[in-house]
Amino acid sequence: MSGSSKRLTAGVDLGGTKIQTVIVRDGEVTGSARSLTPQSGVPADVIEAIVETLHTALQAASTDDEQLAGVGIGTPGEIDKHAGAVSLAANVPGFSDRVELGPLVSEQLDGVKVTVENDVRAGVLGELRQGAGRPYRNLLGVWVGTGVGGGLVLEGKLRDGRGAAGEFGHMVVKPGGRRCGCGRRGCVEAYAGRASMERRARRLVERGHNTDLFRIMEQRDRQRLSSGVYARALEQGDTMAEKLIEKATWALGLGLASAQNLLDLEAIIVGGGLGDRLGQPFVDRIVEHMAPHLFVAEKPPVVIGTELKDLSGAVGAAVLASG
Amino acid sequence: MSGSSKRLTAGVDLGGTKIQTVIVRDGEVTGSARSLTPQSGVPADVIEAIVETLHTALQAASTDDEQLAGVGIGTPGEIDKHAGAVSLAANVPGFSDRVELGPLVSEQLDGVKVTVENDVRAGVLGELRQGAGRPYRNLLGVWVGTGVGGGLVLEGKLRDGRGAAGEFGHMVVKPGGRRCGCGRRGCVEAYAGRASMERRARRLVERGHNTDLFRIMEQRDRQRLSSGVYARALEQGDTMAEKLIEKATWALGLGLASAQNLLDLEAIIVGGGLGDRLGQPFVDRIVEHMAPHLFVAEKPPVVIGTELKDLSGAVGAAVLASG
Repeated sequence: MSGSSKRLTAGVDLGGTKIQTVIVRDGEVTGSARSLTPQSGVPADVIEAIVETLHTALQAASTDDEQLAGVGIGTPGEIDKHAGAVSLAANVPGFSDRVELGPLVSEQLDGVKVTVENDVRAGVLGELRQGAGRPYRNLLGVWVGTGVGGGLVLEGKLRDGRGAAGEFGHMVVKPGGRRCGCGRRGCVEAYAGRASMERRARRLVERGHNTDLFRIMEQRDRQRLSSGVYARALEQGDTMAEKLIEKATWALGLGLASAQNLLDLEAIIVGGGLGDRLGQPFVDRIVEHMAPHLFVAEKPPVVIGTELKDLSGAVGAAVLASG
Repeated sequence: MSGSSKRLTAGVDLGGTKIQTVIVRDGEVTGSARSLTPQSGVPADVIEAIVETLHTALQAASTDDEQLAGVGIGTPGEIDKHAGAVSLAANVPGFSDRVELGPLVSEQLDGVKVTVENDVRAGVLGELRQGAGRPYRNLLGVWVGTGVGGGLVLEGKLRDGRGAAGEFGHMVVKPGGRRCGCGRRGCVEAYAGRASMERRARRLVERGHNTDLFRIMEQRDRQRLSSGVYARALEQGDTMAEKLIEKATWALGLGLASAQNLLDLEAIIVGGGLGDRLGQPFVDRIVEHMAPHLFVAEKPPVVIGTELKDLSGAVGAAVLASG
């Protein structure tokens, strides 16, 4: 095994529905693989699926796990970095209690070092080092998906705070406003997180409003209003979808203006399932809502989508593994 | 002149009504002086008053300007740090246009180095290095006075951003809310800045509401509702004063919760004229309004008043002069 082969790292993006892995050498993705997250509710099945997906990606990169310098895993939930453990990852079957994710994966890979990080932070790191964030040293990554997560980068470093920095989704944009999944009211996530938007849509339907959202969902054999469902509904000019997205971009824009006034950032990157899927028109609407509230209006931050799209998280996890 | 004597620095806090100077040796204030800001509208008169007040403080410290290693000046307005110039300091008579403050003061002091900084940032730096902020490396200083200013300290350093970081007063707490001095709506400052609060009070009086605020103002021979006027009115149980302060602490608490959720800070320091004058009860009300919106409710930031009170700015300016 030569020195240069040890520059090979793997990144895993663990989600509630899929597992995305990449193999990275010298900053280039040389192989990738994706599988569905087992829905059995047993952590061991998820661990096995991660390892299998890693092996598939290694094969795609024409290499094997003996060449790996390290593995990074991005996962939802609360991270105990030191132990490589994750708690409260409610969207991953079997992961609502604490899982020793790092050690369990490492065990299956002959003891290779495994680093565990929050999935949003991993995604933002991926964009910072290998994607749209490369030109910037001070930026906020806003990941719009089931919830709204954030990763704050200052002077080129992802900020931890005391462990909970970057919770952009829980900045308050409307006091006494819509109920958020966190139990509070008026958070950005209450308007821009898919879970909250779906609760809102269901309530509107109960009240007699019309929409094609749930019909499209069923046609696509989905259980939830996914980002693809919103994209299709918007294409069809569905009024409820338009209003929900309008309100989401309003909340994101308002929260971002406040964050910008406080931090004077160079750039904002909008990612996550909904951000990636809806792309530039979504980003443009956010900018329109943000602009009127910027204190230094003549010097707005650059606002852009991701470059790596749904590979951000896995690439960022691989970056972690190399550090 | 010995090496140790060059550890002597001077700090100046230039305000619309007064000029506060301190002489600092080895982190200790060894002399201070205060004078009224000339209201003539001529910058040269303000420069002369600054130099005179410095000389008085040097006398109080039993030394003279030959011993000075440097002078720092905190001033309202926009700062051109490189040139030591200030623009748009509308509250300082004669300072609405650009004034080459640093060079002009330096000329009067045999060429000693003069550093110019925004007054709020100087105040936060004073508290960070010599006051209530000493135990912390990550904090937000919120200065509540005529306006609401902020200074963000991360990893022990005051953050510049691209020159405008820390504008906490222009975080939006109520979309479409009260008009702010900046022309936008719903900013923290629209509720918690003395200028906005006074506009609100005058409007309420026009509408027939009762208050002792303006009577107290006249008794004290003031032109404006100063922090002391609010303090007296609160002591008397004046309903309008109570409501205005309640709304101010609401806006401050809400904005601080959003800032905390984004940054996960160790501490928040509440200063400025109103913060210093109203003290702990004011801080306590802010905390009560902030707490319900904290995402990590079990780990709130420490929220405290200043230690140096109205010397924060001058001491911080002296710190700048030593760096």
